[in-house]
Formats: sequence, C-alpha cells, structure tokens
Amino acid sequence: MGNSTGTLFRVTTWGESHGKAIGAVVDGCPPLLPLTEADIQPDLDRRAPGQSAIVTQRKESDTVQILSGTFEGVTTGTPISLLIPNEDQRTGDYMDVALKYRPSHADFTYDAKYGTRDWRGGGRTSARETATRVAAGAVARALLARRYGVEIVAWVHVVRDLGGDVDPETVTRQDVDRTVVRCPDLEAAGRMIEAIQAARKDGDSLGGVVGCVVRGCPPGWGEPVFDRLEADLARAMLSLPATKGFEIGSGFAGTRLSGLAHNDAFFMDGGRVRTRTNRSGGIQGGITNGEAIEFRVAFKPVATVMREQETVTRTREDTMIAGRGRHDPCVLPRAVALVEAMAALVLADHALRHEAIRPRSPGPIGHAIEPVPTFIPRPDDSSGGTGETGERG
Amino acid sequence: MGNSTGTLFRVTTWGESHGKAIGAVVDGCPPLLPLTEADIQPDLDRRAPGQSAIVTQRKESDTVQILSGTFEGVTTGTPISLLIPNEDQRTGDYMDVALKYRPSHADFTYDAKYGTRDWRGGGRTSARETATRVAAGAVARALLARRYGVEIVAWVHVVRDLGGDVDPETVTRQDVDRTVVRCPDLEAAGRMIEAIQAARKDGDSLGGVVGCVVRGCPPGWGEPVFDRLEADLARAMLSLPATKGFEIGSGFAGTRLSGLAHNDAFFMDGGRVRTRTNRSGGIQGGITNGEAIEFRVAFKPVATVMREQETVTRTREDTMIAGRGRHDPCVLPRAVALVEAMAALVLADHALRHEAIRPRSPGPIGHAIEPVPTFIPRPDDSSGGTGETGERG
Amino acid sequence: MGNSTGTLFRVTTWGESHGKAIGAVVDGCPPLLPLTEADIQPDLDRRAPGQSAIVTQRKESDTVQILSGTFEGVTTGTPISLLIPNEDQRTGDYMDVALKYRPSHADFTYDAKYGTRDWRGGGRTSARETATRVAAGAVARALLARRYGVEIVAWVHVVRDLGGDVDPETVTRQDVDRTVVRCPDLEAAGRMIEAIQAARKDGDSLGGVVGCVVRGCPPGWGEPVFDRLEADLARAMLSLPATKGFEIGSGFAGTRLSGLAHNDAFFMDGGRVRTRTNRSGGIQGGITNGEAIEFRVAFKPVATVMREQETVTRTREDTMIAGRGRHDPCVLPRAVALVEAMAALVLADHALRHEAIRPRSPGPIGHAIEPVPTFIPRPDDSSGGTGETGERG
Amino acid sequence: MGNSTGTLFRVTTWGESHGKAIGAVVDGCPPLLPLTEADIQPDLDRRAPGQSAIVTQRKESDTVQILSGTFEGVTTGTPISLLIPNEDQRTGDYMDVALKYRPSHADFTYDAKYGTRDWRGGGRTSARETATRVAAGAVARALLARRYGVEIVAWVHVVRDLGGDVDPETVTRQDVDRTVVRCPDLEAAGRMIEAIQAARKDGDSLGGVVGCVVRGCPPGWGEPVFDRLEADLARAMLSLPATKGFEIGSGFAGTRLSGLAHNDAFFMDGGRVRTRTNRSGGIQGGITNGEAIEFRVAFKPVATVMREQETVTRTREDTMIAGRGRHDPCVLPRAVALVEAMAALVLADHALRHEAIRPRSPGPIGHAIEPVPTFIPRPDDSSGGTGETGERG
Repeated sequence: MGNSTGTLFRVTTWGESHGKAIGAVVDGCPPLLPLTEADIQPDLDRRAPGQSAIVTQRKESDTVQILSGTFEGVTTGTPISLLIPNEDQRTGDYMDVALKYRPSHADFTYDAKYGTRDWRGGGRTSARETATRVAAGAVARALLARRYGVEIVAWVHVVRDLGGDVDPETVTRQDVDRTVVRCPDLEAAGRMIEAIQAARKDGDSLGGVVGCVVRGCPPGWGEPVFDRLEADLARAMLSLPATKGFEIGSGFAGTRLSGLAHNDAFFMDGGRVRTRTNRSGGIQGGITNGEAIEFRVAFKPVATVMREQETVTRTREDTMIAGRGRHDPCVLPRAVALVEAMAALVLADHALRHEAIRPRSPGPIGHAIEPVPTFIPRPDDSSGGTGETGERG
Repeated sequence: MGNSTGTLFRVTTWGESHGKAIGAVVDGCPPLLPLTEADIQPDLDRRAPGQSAIVTQRKESDTVQILSGTFEGVTTGTPISLLIPNEDQRTGDYMDVALKYRPSHADFTYDAKYGTRDWRGGGRTSARETATRVAAGAVARALLARRYGVEIVAWVHVVRDLGGDVDPETVTRQDVDRTVVRCPDLEAAGRMIEAIQAARKDGDSLGGVVGCVVRGCPPGWGEPVFDRLEADLARAMLSLPATKGFEIGSGFAGTRLSGLAHNDAFFMDGGRVRTRTNRSGGIQGGITNGEAIEFRVAFKPVATVMREQETVTRTREDTMIAGRGRHDPCVLPRAVALVEAMAALVLADHALRHEAIRPRSPGPIGHAIEPVPTFIPRPDDSSGGTGETGERG
Repeated sequence: MGNSTGTLFRVTTWGESHGKAIGAVVDGCPPLLPLTEADIQPDLDRRAPGQSAIVTQRKESDTVQILSGTFEGVTTGTPISLLIPNEDQRTGDYMDVALKYRPSHADFTYDAKYGTRDWRGGGRTSARETATRVAAGAVARALLARRYGVEIVAWVHVVRDLGGDVDPETVTRQDVDRTVVRCPDLEAAGRMIEAIQAARKDGDSLGGVVGCVVRGCPPGWGEPVFDRLEADLARAMLSLPATKGFEIGSGFAGTRLSGLAHNDAFFMDGGRVRTRTNRSGGIQGGITNGEAIEFRVAFKPVATVMREQETVTRTREDTMIAGRGRHDPCVLPRAVALVEAMAALVLADHALRHEAIRPRSPGPIGHAIEPVPTFIPRPDDSSGGTGETGERG
Repeated sequence: MGNSTGTLFRVTTWGESHGKAIGAVVDGCPPLLPLTEADIQPDLDRRAPGQSAIVTQRKESDTVQILSGTFEGVTTGTPISLLIPNEDQRTGDYMDVALKYRPSHADFTYDAKYGTRDWRGGGRTSARETATRVAAGAVARALLARRYGVEIVAWVHVVRDLGGDVDPETVTRQDVDRTVVRCPDLEAAGRMIEAIQAARKDGDSLGGVVGCVVRGCPPGWGEPVFDRLEADLARAMLSLPATKGFEIGSGFAGTRLSGLAHNDAFFMDGGRVRTRTNRSGGIQGGITNGEAIEFRVAFKPVATVMREQETVTRTREDTMIAGRGRHDPCVLPRAVALVEAMAALVLADHALRHEAIRPRSPGPIGHAIEPVPTFIPRPDDSSGGTGETGERG
C-alpha cells in the first residue's frame, strides 16, 4: 500500500530501479484534455539523470509512453497508463547493497518491514521512482494550465548555506532553467554550482531548499480539517525522497512575528478581495484565498557518498561501506521537477474535489447535455498535429 | 469532505463552535482495548480553555461522552462515537464576524468555497474543532500504549524567539506539565510566560514551535512512496489550525550539513540494529527504523488580536475590525495536546496497516481461533500481568 | 471499519441498539441545500417500529436531531451530524442472547471476529442501525430532488409467493403508502397483510422482494469497471440486514432470453436518445442512460421466530433457543424506507463524482465566482419559516 | 475514477481493447508470496478467446508479464505491475461502432458521460478489460491458497433455461474444466453446448447463471454495515460486464420460505461451531461463519448479435446496425474465470482487513522482529505449477 495518492485525480505508481520498466496510472483525469507524450517528456527531461555536469552521469533517456486513456490526442476519462522503460542497469555497481545497509537509506527499514527487498539499484526505494511522479504530474499540470490557467514554478532556493534572491510573484520556468542548478538568481547560482562541484570532488554531497509558487488558483480550493490544502501539500512534499521539512507562507520564520505584524490585511482590489501581504502563503483555513501559494521544501544532503562509513550487514554484523558508481552530489537541481509534479497532483485533485460541491449556475441539470468543455488553447496549438482537437478547446 | 483521516484507524469529526455539540467517530479501533471516558478526559483537559492564566479565559469543561463502541469497559470493534457538548456560547461576542472577514482567519475562504458559513464563534473553523481530534487521539494513544508500548510526548520548544533546551530521548509528560506554558526547560519556561503575558497586555499574540517525540515504535511502520510515515505526520500537523511548517529529524538545519556529516551510521547494539545519530528522525524511506521519531511544528501567532486592523466586509467594502472577547495570546501551551493527538492518530493507523501485511508466524491460520488478545494492563489494572511493558507507556 | 460509504457524499454511522443513541455523520453534502429535521423525520417514520399492526410493536419515536452542518436552514458544506436517541431499551428481553447464538443472526460471527460484542438487543447488529441510514439517506434524497429533480420510489413487490403488479414508470410514494404493507397493488396488498398476520400468529416470519425505481437521472452518472453504478447499488442493497439477492433491469429472468430479444433498441425521441425497452434497467456499462433505474432486492424471512430452535452457547455447548419479545413477522413494509435510503446514498455520491469531471461550459474558471447555486424550490417552500433561504435557490 | 478496488489488497486496471496493452497494478499484496507468471497464466488461459468452438474465434494469446513487485520469485510488498500486450486488433471490424450506438452496449453512455470515447473494439468498455481482473485475481488467489488454504471454484450453473446439478461442497476446478462449457454436470453440459451452437448458427446469443463456492475461509472475515462481505461480493460481481443479478445462499428462492424453515441451526461439530444447513451462504451479518460461501451471478445474453437492430447514430439520427466479426454466442464459459477472479480480490482484501484488527497472541510486539512468514509450500515448489492447493495445511 501507499503507492497511490489523490481522491479524484488519483495516481498509482509502480516499478523498481532495475526491473523492466517503471510506470504510473492516472485515474480520474477529466476527458477531452489535449494530451500526448510531448506534453510529458519535457518535465521528465528536467528530472532526468545526465542532463548536466552537476548531477549524476548515469545515462537514461526516460522516454515515456502513453499506453491507454487517450484517443485522437485527447484524454477519454479512462485511466492513463504511463510507462518508462528502464535502460541503464548496471547491477554490478550495487552488489554491496545486497549485503550491507547503506546509512540513511531505506535498506534496513524495507527489510524490517517486508522481510525482503529488491536491492538492485535500491529497488523500489531508488529515486528513480520519482520519474513516474513527474510523468503523472505533467498530466495534472496540463489539466491545471488548460482548464484553470494555473501555473506552478519551483526553483533551487538554497544550496547548503547559499541562498538565492527570488520573487515568487514573477519568477518563471524560463528564469529557473537559465542555469543548470535551477536557481533564478544568477549570482547565487554561480556560487551554488561551485559548491556542488567541490562536494563532488570531495566524494561528499550537499542539501538545500527548493522554493515553489503556484499562481492562478481561484479562491475556494481545499477542504476543512484533515484535508487542508497545505496539509496535502506538506504530505506530498514529505513523500519525496530526502525531504526533511516543509513550510508555507511565513513558515518557521513567521513564528517570530507578533500576530499584529503577521496578519494579512484584506482590501478590495477592483472588485476582488485581496491581501496586502501574503504570510498566509495563499491558503487560509486550508482553502485558497486567490493569492499565490508559496512554500519551501528542505532536502537533506544526498545519503550516498563516496567515502567509507560505518554500518551493519543484513546478517547483523558491524562493517564498513562506501558509495560507488554514479550519484548526485546534490539532488536539488533535479528536485525542482519533483516539487512541481507533486504540487500539480495535489492541486489537480483539489480542483476536481471542489468542482463536485461548488455553487452551480441556476436550474436543475436534468437531461440536458452541457456544452462541450473548453480547455484553454495552448499558444502553439496551431503548430501541433492535433489541430482539430484544439478547436474543441 | 476532508473531515476524515486514516485508512484503517479512521476518524471523522463534526461540529461547529456554537452548535449543540461537537464530536468524533472512531472506526477501526481493534476490539478488547480497555476504554472509558477516564482514558480520554485528561487529554481534553490539557487542551481545554481556561486552564491557566496564559490561555483564553473562556470556560468550557469539554466533558466527553462515549456513545457507542464500548461494552463492559472495552472496545468492541464497532465505531466509537465521542460527543462533547458545547456550553459557553456567547454569540454576541462575534457579531462582527458575520459581516467582516477577520484577517488571517478562514472567514473569506469559507465564503468563497461554500457561499455560506456558520459565523458564530468561527463555526467549523473555530479551534474548538480540535477538541474532537484530542478525544479521538486519546483512543489512538491508548491503543499504541497498551498494545505496543509506544509513548508520545510533545512540548513547547520555542515561543517567539525564546527556545528551550529539551532532550527528546528522555523528556516525559510530567516534565512538560510542570509549568503552564508546557516547556520542560524551566528557565526558558519562565521567560516564555513573561513574553506571553506581555503580549496579552498589548492586545497582541505570539507564535512558536512545538517539539514532539514518539518512542517505542518497532521498525517497519510506514509505507513507501506517497504514504511515507513522515508524509502522513506532516499532513497531520499541517492540518492543525495556525500551523505553518513541519520538520523531522535534522529538518531545515540539516540541509546545511554535508552528506558525510549528516548520515546516521548503523551499528549493532545487543542484537538490535541502531543508528549512532538520529538525523533521520526515526524514519528512513518512510518507514520506522526503531529510533525515536522526532519532529517539530511551527505555529504562527494567533490571528485574533485586540487591535484595529484593515479588512473588508462580506459585501465587498473596505473597513476596519478589532478582535474582542476572550482569546489566546499564544496557542502553544494548548497546542501540545493537539500535536500529540494527531501523532497518535497517524501512528495507530500505520500500526494497523502494518499488521495487515507483516510477516507472520509459521502455518496457515485456518479455522483455529487465535488466543484472545492481551493489551498491556494499566498500572491500575489490579489483575496484574506484564507490568514491565506497561512502564514503557 | 466498514461503517462508512461513499467517495464524495460520504456517510459514517455508529451506535448500538441499547447505547445512549445512534447516529450518522454526512460529510460532503454540498452547501446551500435547504435542510431541517422536518426533511428527515418523515423517512424515519416510515421505518419506525410500531407504525402498524403488521410490524414490531416496539415503540420508539426515532426523533432525529441535526447537531451540526446547517445554519439558518441550509447546509454549510461541513459535516452534518445526525443523532437519534435510544428510548425503548428492555435489556431483560434479550438476556438469552448473551449466552446463546441466535440462528441466522450475527451473534456467532461477531464473537468470532471481535472476541466480544454488545449483546444487548443485538448491539451493532440490530436492525436499529438502519435508522441512521434512513436519516442520512433523507439528506441524499433532498439533494437529489432539489438539485437534479431525481425521484426514488420503492415498494413491497412480493411477500413470500404473493406478488404485486406495479408499473415502475408511474408508481408514486403516495401509491405505496396507501396500505400498511406498502404494496401499491391493493388487491395483492390485502393478501400480503393476511399472510403476515398468519405468520405472526404462528410465531413464524416471512420474506419477500422489494422493488425500486429511480426516475430523473441524467445520462452519464456512474463510473466504469469496478464502480459501475449497478455494482454500487448491489453493494448498497446487500449491505442491508436480511438481504440475499439483487437484480437490475431484466435480472435473473432476463438470462432466459436470447440476445436479440433482450437488447434495448435505441431510437430518437424529440432530440433525446431513448430505448424502446428497458431491460438494461437504466444503466449501460455502469453508467445511466437516462431511462428509469429499476431493481429488486430479496429479503429473507426474519430470523427471529417465536419457536424453539437448535443452537449452541458461547461456551460451545449444544442448546435450544426461542425468540421472545417484540419482533417483526415480516420486515418488508419497513424495508421500503431502507432501500430508498441506500439508493439515495449511492446516487448522491455518483452525482457528485460526475460533477467533478463532466464537460464544462466554455472558458477557464479563473478567479470569477460563479452565480449562487439554485436548488429546485419545494412546492411548499412558501409555507415554511425558511422562505427567505428558499429565495437563494 | 472507478478503476480501482479494494481497501488493502488494492487493484487498479487500465487499458483499451485496441491500445498497445492492458494491465493491472496490485498494491498491498503481502511480501514473500511465491509468484511468477506461471501462477497467473493458467487463469488467463481459461478466460482467453479462441479456446474452444463455443466461444469467440478471436485469437489473442493474452500473455502476462510481471513488470515489478517480485524479486527472486517472491513478492516484495511493492506494487505488482501486470501487463498484457494487445495483439489481434482489426480496427476495420468495428468502424460502424464509431458512428452508431450498439444496442445494450455502453457506447451511448460513455459518450454521454465523457463527450468522447475510444470506439475501436469497444475501447475501455470491451470485455477485454476483464483479462486484467483475471490476472490480478490470480495473485489474490495465490495469496488465499498459500496463506489460508482458501479455494474458489466457479462453474456454469445455467445456460438459458438449461440448468446443471452441482454440489458446491465438493465441486472442483477439474470437474468444471471437463467440458468446454464449464458445467460439471456432464449431461447438462452437453445440452448447453448444443444450445450455444444453435444460437451461434442463428446469429443470436444466450445468457445464464454462474455458480461459485469459496471453501476454507475462517470465521471472522468481513465487516459490519456497509462493507459486509456479501455486499462487497455483490459489488464485485455486478461490476462484471453483462451481469444483471447476484444472490447468496438461499437467494431469491429463499424469500419463499418461512423463517423457521429458513434458519440455519447451529450445532457443535468436534469443537467447531457449524450450521446444519447453509442458507446463509457462509456469511452472517456480513462476516464469514466458516461454512462455504455460495453465490450465483446472472449474465444477460451477449449484446452483440449478427442480426439487424434498430438504433441511433452519434449525430442523433435513427438507423440500423448489425454485429459483425467474431463474437461470443455465450459468455458464460469464459465468465467462470471472471467470477473466480473477482471473488478472490474481495476475499484477499477482507483477509488483510481482518488481520489488521483480529485478536492477537499475548504480549506487546515491541521491537522483536517476528519470524519470517511461512506460506504453505507448494507440493511442486521445486519446479512450478499450481498443484493441488487443496492441501490447505
């Protein structure tokens, strides 16, 4: 259990690092959303290994296939099966892992829970698993963008103690992708890259903080009590490998302010209720207020280091272990894609949950069939091969 | 939706601040757990208003009734209905709330979502709702203590910028309850109380951080991927009113360490696999490793302050509002009970989820009926039994 | 577990026959639905004991209280807590049940599952539990009627071998309630009443079949594969005490026809797609086609009879038992209310599920707040005290 | 939505008739269960088209691949991804379906719900979808057989009006597979085969009833109220294509008996509580009593017939349509595999749900790691195959 998420926009992932493939099934995506592999692959490429000098040099193209759920370029409302074949499998690199527990990995806990595990490349606990989240997240992102105009941007906010200066209200994905480290503050980015390269040379690794903003949500998304939107975001982020913390809006720093200083005053802005500040981070009482959703996620330094460390064997003897092979000295540049994907999954689910109960236009629905839905056309819809389905939108 | 939590140990809460009552239904509690109101009331008393000079002076006894699910002093496996009558309802105190949106409260977002709301005392968004979580949490706590010897202790870690020095491995509930502010560092507690009293005099409010430790979980609780134990804890904590952040183990501070410095080395300790440090916070890959689970939760300063603030009316006009009546200048001393309750709900659920799939002793179950379960006797269970495990709880 | 149902319109019930009360929590009901106790009580009265000479003479008023979730006469979108106090509790009537397993009751299986049970009046297994379903079902019925114009009518179709002749397309609740046995075929009703009275005199009991029709569902409700609408209806009906079978449309009799004879031909009827016959029972591939949903539910004869029967004790000895006290000789007249309630719960849930993904009107929703929803006014809305809230609708 | 089932043993299926593949993901299967493709393929072969002269002559090998969730021949507790490539896709056969609604199929309702559909071969509504249920069901069956000694046998009970005489207490899979029609009463089987061949010659089709028995369940599986075991079985069966009814134990016929005649008397049988008769069908109050679970499922005649029928076009015009290509004149011989698979899914889920709360052996679990689970060894574990799981152990 535990491999599914979402109430209405529901994703189930499967697959081990060194099996034939990994994949995700998206159930609950509304019909008539334009969707092809080309909508998903760019997000996967941002997560892929080998994309730059500061991430793992493992080569894996991570090419997604849509096996079901679309027809003539649009979703049909049936489950979307996404499959990514595994390619680069050097089992030999990982033989130690079969016998010894890597410190701060999940080898021991999986053995404790299940009594067995696929140790090849970390098996199910490999960060490779996150590729399927990114694939599913791309479907959610497309839904959010097309139907609601919602935009999600994450970036590397801090590497170790090196922080960037980023404005969540205006930052774009283009800004983020300007450097390989994905920090839109170019000066900070330079320092981060240097630090990561130094850590790699040392056989060591670094952690940091990813920032994320969601712009364009209408007021009203989210649920009371247990399923508050920030609660579901926190769960989504802490479900990512290597995460140790989550904060929204003013976060931990906000706890040092007094209530008077912290409160977000409401004011009228051309007929729309807005707040003067956004310490709430776009969510109040678990429900969006129409301001930008802003949160940050802490990633610990990568556990695999190229240095000897104390550990124990499966058979309960003290021993030493050292990482080998190709690993990330810092996961953050790739983690940006994970944070965006998980945010998209949470928001798409809450968008649909809100649809189910939100105030309706007058009159019973009766037997009348509603007008065909309109998704927001992509700027480049004219160019694509699915032009005629674009007309639907 | 959103008023239920848990997969197997499932809690649904209901009720508004000024209705006849509030309550919770616990479905999935195993049978034969000793349970009476006396197991629940002490936890409620720790959350109750009016318990000390530094919290709200509203008086409400919060007396819980068990309406179903127990028989002859033990649970029967059927739903446990917990009801707490509402007593102190001064609707007049809140008339402003009907017409104006309180800054950094959920008045506006509820209106945006639902098109209406029970504004009396905050209705469903009142922190009063958390009493039902504490009641349900007490059932979970009893299950964890009796069946598994698990112990949960939370404390006030920081108020504003005033931090306490607390050892999670040894802190007890008795230590915590030594002062009204519930910080076991007595010197820090004194400063915190002063700061809270000053804020109250000012008509202002303070925030801070609650720390929590869970001791005694066996290795193996938790699930992979989306339902990681730390993810469910994060969700649980961020579902509490006024929370802005969550961190586990090394948390945000740990992101500044290198991987080599951060990793928790394994070693053998008398046949048991342990870690030299606990930066993982007791969870690796979403699953407990047998070390103490340690996490912290950020609470913003209370939004209700006794000073004028800018806001808007329901009818979309700019206006001013000031808090009136009896409110908490600092929610943290009472929040300790909430954090413990939510932790208990998450862990009880994962304990049961693990039971369903964990390795079994040899042999098929067939038609043989297993021996009647034994819960760990309470210290006052005159009949005696396995007292030494009781000491863990 | 097992005491909740529904994905979006979600109901949790609790309570034992001889506890202080029984109740239900409805989570997920859309806001702004007019709702007071007066919308629920009539359905409860149809289920109540003591309502006529042919049902149990136990007297219990079953007066429902709404404890939360409504404000100024309409729902607020928060959980609706429904409570029914227990009144008529003669524990003495049931002392035998503590020690002996009643044949074809759940006494033995509850003991086998839980190791204990509240034996007073059958505890959780008492048919009294169904009162809470009826209360929750009344909320679902109100939603279906007000928002969609959907109408649900059940009736006693057969008692033992005495069948009525009923037209599902036209039968009304008024027709059904014309006799105490709730068969709208008056001639058949007379024979049924005689048979039930004879069974009572004999200390024996009778079973039969309840028919049900749902009129007014738009095409498109239901889900593919596992959550087909007929599957959820079957589950709902088989979850009722004493049910042994379910059939929809042509049912078991339809298996004797050839495909050519069985198929429902489509034709155009004034712009609407309709079928010439309705052997599909209003559902095709799990989804409504706009025709009336028609199904039947088999109820076994009541297990409690006033005659000696062979059984065993809790302590595993052979013995004899005879029913005593006040019981139904035939559950069907009261079961009509149960079947309608369960059908309403299933349909309300599927209506909301469909809302979440159905085709939308053009344009992104963006920040625009939709017009306030309109529920269909009740014919008698003018007379009630909540007239002004009706104007919202 | 709607493509998943189960609370703990959870299955999600995906795929259209003419996509690249179809598949299922099984999440929640306990670890250490021996499982290879050889455990699944035989069940798929019983469902496969082209297996005999009386079913569709479409040729498709339905070869299953396990893509994840097993390691070294046993399950690991992670999701099991099962994939079946689509092979025989003659889109041309189905061109009519794109434009016209086939009577008593789901073409119209899918269009009404989703506004689009993959019409090739019926798309998601094709009975081909059931292959993935059979694959997932084979995993559940293996779990039930290995851990609990549970055995499930279904058979063709009636074709049209031709019924077989079958003893549920003793019938075996070998008996069932003795004839191509899968009725263990050989004389009846002969008549059934003749009737099916006659229907095929006529271009017509037949329906009937499948019987099913589950032997070896311990008392205590199932849940109260909404998740009664018979309710979940009913839902599972009515979720199968072409089903119109479900009955358990005495079923519809039992409604004609009096209570005295219908009740199952308890008696002691060598220390075990048993019932003299089994009109309850092995379930009382939603929970197994240890007797055989017996139920029957009604299948309508196949909707695709080779004769002209009235219908309408997608564009709302009256027209005529006739089936073409290769279809089943009677689905029942293949449906036997579907009924068994769905029963296995329901029971595996309830077995795990019961594990989570059932009475335990004395003492807290604490940190002790339990002995590695033992599944019942297969007689032929050295080689493979499914031998007589009847050894139960």
